[in-house]
Amino acid sequence: MTTRQEKDSIGTIDVPSHRYWGAQTQRSFTNFDIGGQKMPQEIIRAFAILKKAAATTNAALGVLDQDKATLIGRVADEILAGELDEEFPLVVWQTGSGTQSNMNVNEVIANRGHVLQGGKLEEGNTTLHPNDDVNKSQSSNDTFPTAMHIAAYEALLSNTIPGVEQLRDTLRAKSEEMSDIVKIGRTHFMDATPLTLGQEFSGYVSQLDHGLRALRNTLDHLSELALGGTAVGTGLNTPEGYAVKVAEEIASLTGHPFRTAENKFEALAAHDAIVEAHGALKTLAVSLTKIGNDVRMLSSGPRSGIGELIIPANEPGSSIMPGKVNPTQSEALTMAMAQVLGNDVAINIGGMTGHFELNVFKPMMVYNFLISARLIGDACRSFDTNCAQGIEPNRGRIEELLNNSLMLVTALNTKIGYDKAAKIAKKAYADDTTLRAAALELGYLTGEEFDAWVRPEDMVG
Amino acid sequence: MTTRQEKDSIGTIDVPSHRYWGAQTQRSFTNFDIGGQKMPQEIIRAFAILKKAAATTNAALGVLDQDKATLIGRVADEILAGELDEEFPLVVWQTGSGTQSNMNVNEVIANRGHVLQGGKLEEGNTTLHPNDDVNKSQSSNDTFPTAMHIAAYEALLSNTIPGVEQLRDTLRAKSEEMSDIVKIGRTHFMDATPLTLGQEFSGYVSQLDHGLRALRNTLDHLSELALGGTAVGTGLNTPEGYAVKVAEEIASLTGHPFRTAENKFEALAAHDAIVEAHGALKTLAVSLTKIGNDVRMLSSGPRSGIGELIIPANEPGSSIMPGKVNPTQSEALTMAMAQVLGNDVAINIGGMTGHFELNVFKPMMVYNFLISARLIGDACRSFDTNCAQGIEPNRGRIEELLNNSLMLVTALNTKIGYDKAAKIAKKAYADDTTLRAAALELGYLTGEEFDAWVRPEDMVG
Amino acid sequence: MTTRQEKDSIGTIDVPSHRYWGAQTQRSFTNFDIGGQKMPQEIIRAFAILKKAAATTNAALGVLDQDKATLIGRVADEILAGELDEEFPLVVWQTGSGTQSNMNVNEVIANRGHVLQGGKLEEGNTTLHPNDDVNKSQSSNDTFPTAMHIAAYEALLSNTIPGVEQLRDTLRAKSEEMSDIVKIGRTHFMDATPLTLGQEFSGYVSQLDHGLRALRNTLDHLSELALGGTAVGTGLNTPEGYAVKVAEEIASLTGHPFRTAENKFEALAAHDAIVEAHGALKTLAVSLTKIGNDVRMLSSGPRSGIGELIIPANEPGSSIMPGKVNPTQSEALTMAMAQVLGNDVAINIGGMTGHFELNVFKPMMVYNFLISARLIGDACRSFDTNCAQGIEPNRGRIEELLNNSLMLVTALNTKIGYDKAAKIAKKAYADDTTLRAAALELGYLTGEEFDAWVRPEDMVG
Amino acid sequence: MTTRQEKDSIGTIDVPSHRYWGAQTQRSFTNFDIGGQKMPQEIIRAFAILKKAAATTNAALGVLDQDKATLIGRVADEILAGELDEEFPLVVWQTGSGTQSNMNVNEVIANRGHVLQGGKLEEGNTTLHPNDDVNKSQSSNDTFPTAMHIAAYEALLSNTIPGVEQLRDTLRAKSEEMSDIVKIGRTHFMDATPLTLGQEFSGYVSQLDHGLRALRNTLDHLSELALGGTAVGTGLNTPEGYAVKVAEEIASLTGHPFRTAENKFEALAAHDAIVEAHGALKTLAVSLTKIGNDVRMLSSGPRSGIGELIIPANEPGSSIMPGKVNPTQSEALTMAMAQVLGNDVAINIGGMTGHFELNVFKPMMVYNFLISARLIGDACRSFDTNCAQGIEPNRGRIEELLNNSLMLVTALNTKIGYDKAAKIAKKAYADDTTLRAAALELGYLTGEEFDAWVRPEDMVG
Repeated sequence: MTTRQEKDSIGTIDVPSHRYWGAQTQRSFTNFDIGGQKMPQEIIRAFAILKKAAATTNAALGVLDQDKATLIGRVADEILAGELDEEFPLVVWQTGSGTQSNMNVNEVIANRGHVLQGGKLEEGNTTLHPNDDVNKSQSSNDTFPTAMHIAAYEALLSNTIPGVEQLRDTLRAKSEEMSDIVKIGRTHFMDATPLTLGQEFSGYVSQLDHGLRALRNTLDHLSELALGGTAVGTGLNTPEGYAVKVAEEIASLTGHPFRTAENKFEALAAHDAIVEAHGALKTLAVSLTKIGNDVRMLSSGPRSGIGELIIPANEPGSSIMPGKVNPTQSEALTMAMAQVLGNDVAINIGGMTGHFELNVFKPMMVYNFLISARLIGDACRSFDTNCAQGIEPNRGRIEELLNNSLMLVTALNTKIGYDKAAKIAKKAYADDTTLRAAALELGYLTGEEFDAWVRPEDMVG
Repeated sequence: MTTRQEKDSIGTIDVPSHRYWGAQTQRSFTNFDIGGQKMPQEIIRAFAILKKAAATTNAALGVLDQDKATLIGRVADEILAGELDEEFPLVVWQTGSGTQSNMNVNEVIANRGHVLQGGKLEEGNTTLHPNDDVNKSQSSNDTFPTAMHIAAYEALLSNTIPGVEQLRDTLRAKSEEMSDIVKIGRTHFMDATPLTLGQEFSGYVSQLDHGLRALRNTLDHLSELALGGTAVGTGLNTPEGYAVKVAEEIASLTGHPFRTAENKFEALAAHDAIVEAHGALKTLAVSLTKIGNDVRMLSSGPRSGIGELIIPANEPGSSIMPGKVNPTQSEALTMAMAQVLGNDVAINIGGMTGHFELNVFKPMMVYNFLISARLIGDACRSFDTNCAQGIEPNRGRIEELLNNSLMLVTALNTKIGYDKAAKIAKKAYADDTTLRAAALELGYLTGEEFDAWVRPEDMVG
Repeated sequence: MTTRQEKDSIGTIDVPSHRYWGAQTQRSFTNFDIGGQKMPQEIIRAFAILKKAAATTNAALGVLDQDKATLIGRVADEILAGELDEEFPLVVWQTGSGTQSNMNVNEVIANRGHVLQGGKLEEGNTTLHPNDDVNKSQSSNDTFPTAMHIAAYEALLSNTIPGVEQLRDTLRAKSEEMSDIVKIGRTHFMDATPLTLGQEFSGYVSQLDHGLRALRNTLDHLSELALGGTAVGTGLNTPEGYAVKVAEEIASLTGHPFRTAENKFEALAAHDAIVEAHGALKTLAVSLTKIGNDVRMLSSGPRSGIGELIIPANEPGSSIMPGKVNPTQSEALTMAMAQVLGNDVAINIGGMTGHFELNVFKPMMVYNFLISARLIGDACRSFDTNCAQGIEPNRGRIEELLNNSLMLVTALNTKIGYDKAAKIAKKAYADDTTLRAAALELGYLTGEEFDAWVRPEDMVG
Repeated sequence: MTTRQEKDSIGTIDVPSHRYWGAQTQRSFTNFDIGGQKMPQEIIRAFAILKKAAATTNAALGVLDQDKATLIGRVADEILAGELDEEFPLVVWQTGSGTQSNMNVNEVIANRGHVLQGGKLEEGNTTLHPNDDVNKSQSSNDTFPTAMHIAAYEALLSNTIPGVEQLRDTLRAKSEEMSDIVKIGRTHFMDATPLTLGQEFSGYVSQLDHGLRALRNTLDHLSELALGGTAVGTGLNTPEGYAVKVAEEIASLTGHPFRTAENKFEALAAHDAIVEAHGALKTLAVSLTKIGNDVRMLSSGPRSGIGELIIPANEPGSSIMPGKVNPTQSEALTMAMAQVLGNDVAINIGGMTGHFELNVFKPMMVYNFLISARLIGDACRSFDTNCAQGIEPNRGRIEELLNNSLMLVTALNTKIGYDKAAKIAKKAYADDTTLRAAALELGYLTGEEFDAWVRPEDMVG
């Protein structure tokens, strides 16, 4: 690999000749050979947006040449178009402020801008100075949290929420389709009074509806942007009006209602908005685990389980057991949700451990957030497409289990009292017979009364 | 201990003669000798409220004698007045539906009602039947989650929120008082550009303001009550209109805007409202840990630490080191918040592991929730009263650190460029001298320029 | 309440007249009105042991009068006998070093010693000085972690390990009893090839055996005692040979193999032994959750679930559904284990957040540890006594499910090949018929071959 | 992209023409478009080892042609050499048994083997049948957990343990080098009695030594292999002696002391070995966080912090603040350790949620485990190379803080008593003077006595 020399305040360092990045990126690449998890592309794209917005605002406020601003914007657009994806080699496990990824973006924009203007990489001085121009009116300390909010907001709106909504809509349709199917209820994993399959599914719909509301409630805090706070939140070295205007510019570029943060000191020193929003994501993870488990268990069998639902057979279930179809989408969903619950703890630890004017767990926090946001969206879509849409009630099995149940005896509570009803159920259980037979034998009521009173379809509200 | 015999559907069992509880309570007491953590009194009180509301509603809807309803209400009032606290001996680690605590309340109301009417405990038949009357139109499965929401909502409103607000108000007042004190900022735990102590504290205020908003956003879901769902959510064995009316009755008794749950199947099978609200509590725990740590560190010393804040000396700090005063309120606060973050995981696990029509991690979930709600409220109040209110700036130390700092050099970035500014700082650091001396020696600017440009008070926005 | 005045380096304070505690205890009691969770009695008892050991060692090494040592030991014995339980009112949420509980013990010993010698509480000067005598050669910083290890070790040995062993032994006996019962296996919650019920239970036994080994592996680190490190680990103000000798004394008093810590700086500044040992506890919690869930699900029904196990009916299952018996011990067990998993996170946070020479999350860490240790021991015993010992196979149901299963077809893999075997299973499933009928209809083998080859009892190894 | 048709028990499906994978891999690839996290290469390599070992064992036991076994081994070697890395496209979020990755390996081996023998991919029948030959005497249910243990063990031995040891060795060397540097101790983040810098570092060494011991204690459980259990643990369809022999073969291939699992039912249904070993990893994460934080804080400054350590300046610290060098390696380390603590929760949830004969959170569990194992190893090496090795004491600063400290007064406790010593410290603090001056002014001792008694070098043990 041929290299060129790049320079920063520490000294010179060899950089691959064909790469746009500079000395600081190279140092980080060398010094942090950890884990291999790359800084998420969503963060790089968010940086492109904010660099463009900052340049535009700087030019409008008279602190940056319009030509430079235009050039910055042009490279930013290339980043957004995915044309420079190979230029961002740094990992998550770098400096906790994300400074090195901010400088990576600054260096790439400066060098790529130089080349766009006909320059060559090895020439040293570039039209755009990475710090003085591309990073103008900014600090890593306010750009990285701004990129965090842009990327997080965007991920929720473009992936998580539509994914959950898609699954919710399917479950709602299923709930309506299956509103007439009376089945045995189960509490404590034990037989209970009946409900309809539609009612059971309506609970899942309600969980996801509430979860979406909870998630949307957190968007307001996420819409606050740190940009304009610079190094410690005071806005040192920014022109008058910059913070408000650059947030408006970002809102305009993204179409999301971003605004400047109420308090820049919080915005740099803490990431409570990320903690709060991930709190809503973990609530969804809890809901989705419940739903995934119910589907897994309701479709268990084919012969020795519950078997009330039939789920699509997407793949051979086992390499040794022919004919078996497994609830693989439930498995993928619940594994992914376990990951979200783990991520939540990592995010909490990051959030709680900021000191003074700067939280330095930023890359780790947003890395986990973006994984969770994507996992929920993707897993909901996968579960929806490959499982939920194809769920069918196993009507024969449902009816068999319902009619066989002892718990229909509760219908008699209000007719003959709790104690006699209990005796009927116990006798039927002991004798391995039906409730009707036990009731008649005990002489507590007539067959006609039994048939009139014990009607599952009357017990579902 | 003398005993009497009580009976349930399983058989007879000995109960302490003087206790109002009955057979089912006694069985649970015997069968679950685990851990010693009692069912929280807040849950017992919430049960008293809901039993009274259910009785009133049942009477209004014509399914319970008014006399019985009045009697139930009378015992409920005694419970609320704390007169029967010894009658609820069960632990958290019982059946996961909380059935046994529901029955404990039913039995105590029935037996105490009997005694209030002049009866004796050993007589067997009571005016009020624990199931047929006290539990009328109810099931453990809808009463316990209703009690969870009542207790959780009440704890947040009466303890958590006022506690956080009290601390927030003090921090806001301190922020204003100290708005003129310029100090060195710290990022990466390293010296950074200056800000005022007031600005630093304003970040804490903003964290708590956002945290309170996040918490209030979760109240809506918590205000939904499961009551009326009975065993599986269908409302079996409840009179027409019961669910809406009993929620209104509870709202009226508590003064909180409770309403019947949108979907009773969710309300029994999942406790996402608890998970969601605790997500906001853990966000506050994260914020409070940051604040507690900053205070701990800013007050470190007295001579070999940062020492910018003086905190009240509430107790001798050490049994061996005289003269030492420790940040004990920060320690208690951050320990308590670590507990909240642990509780969050327990709650998540409980929430995700419900099956079919009933989540059976109810007592554990609400136990953790109530501990967290109280810990946050109490710890905020304790930290406020015993620490925050007494925080004073150590002006001499603050000024010394500020003037000594190399980071004021950033004021020169826009005057002489980043690279020269960096050289001045490096020289001052290497020579162990001041920025001013290094700048003059390097000849980058005059003494007058230095004094005019490097003014901390101009660097704080 | 009448009070007397007590004095410490801060000044005087009112203390209840009849209490043995002094000024520092009273200050903590007043200043930390948080949560209500008391410092565990196990810690107080551990302190009594170490105070006695320290006094004995101090006397033997000539730095404390033998009379004073004897008096300290006499009060320590009263504490161990539970006679002074009311004298330790402090909560967990105090100073993070536990200094205040150390002083609580010192004060109680000094004052009670004074009274034992005929003195009165209000007299001020006592024979024993809380610091100079009772705390001699000690600091809170080494006594509290010593008490943590004594209490944790003791809890594991006296409660956790015997509890797990008791359950393990029962499960082993059940495994042997049920070694001839062939049943359908389940993978992915779906029907799979058969195994015996004894084999299934042997997996639980193996989990607990491994968990016990893992837990015992952590005892070595827990057996290291910090005592002798005093304030920062250097052993300042201790006589020659003290650290080794006092650990031997504690070993002798407790019967456990305690020894002086290899490195006192670690022993004060970190609590990795607690983190490590709780890592083993959480592993057991994971195992026990699996076991509890399996029992819950295998006993589900009575008619619409799996129903292969019959568990004891310890209490009426529901206040509305007569005849229902719930897996309440599984519920209590799994709730308690969820708590252990939450506690683990709180402990991790405490362990990671120590600074310099002292970790100040001590009370919170040991509080959670002791809860977990007790919950596992208690819940195992409760589950064992009230559930596991009474588990019976439901032979009829097991046989019905086994014979009905399609998965026995795997026995044919090695006879007729995977593809043909799969076709038989698919046909039987589609036609809702038996494997035998499907096999014959497809003509892949004869009835005699089927009967000879498909023998569940030959498929269980 | 050109495709060919592949077939499985579900039907035909298009597969990229040039890929060796088959129908089942393709189905999984299509059906699980979730998250993007690939099945770790370490698992694929572990599968190659076990497939080779199984083939060898099958041949030795006479159930597989030696030619086939040789061919399987040849492809396995290609996988181990990294020549087929592109052939394993599946993600973690697939079926929870990892069946699809097992089939991916089976299909690739069968098809690649066919090509190695001169065949073409589109020909359908291959010499090696993916199920009947490559998967012979195996099931996904025992191969995937075997691969988990091989990969986890290997990662610990080759990365985690050497990484921790490397850092531990450096810290030990530093501890020895700095054994004569007396410095102020800090407890409660407050000044305390002195110790040497070498002693402080010895605590870190002791933490890592204990952590390594804890980790090694867990290797025994990890060395148990599930292979031979097949579908449910009974070993159905394996030849006599297979389980023991195949484990020996794997031990021989890897050089690690693998052996057949004591209980195959546990080995499939639970992953307690992974939970246990990750419990040791999280203990190391806790230790490393403490160490990383101490270094971060001890090197804080350069002028307004503690500044006792000088750490290497690896990169410009800030894009706006020239001259600042940040503790970036501490930041990367502590972020990575926060991730490990989050991973621990995900693993716990996976471990606790297995059902009956099979845990179906396998891919998620091992994915998190391998990330943690690598993060700890890599981060230790990075922290060691780029920070720890270059740590230097800032002797001037250390001496200044030591001499300035009030806490040296504790040296007087045993000379003039606790109360007088406290008064000296208080006076020096109040008057902002030295201990010596305050002591003389109070007349408690002479200057000669002070100088003789207050000697920091005598206070460090």
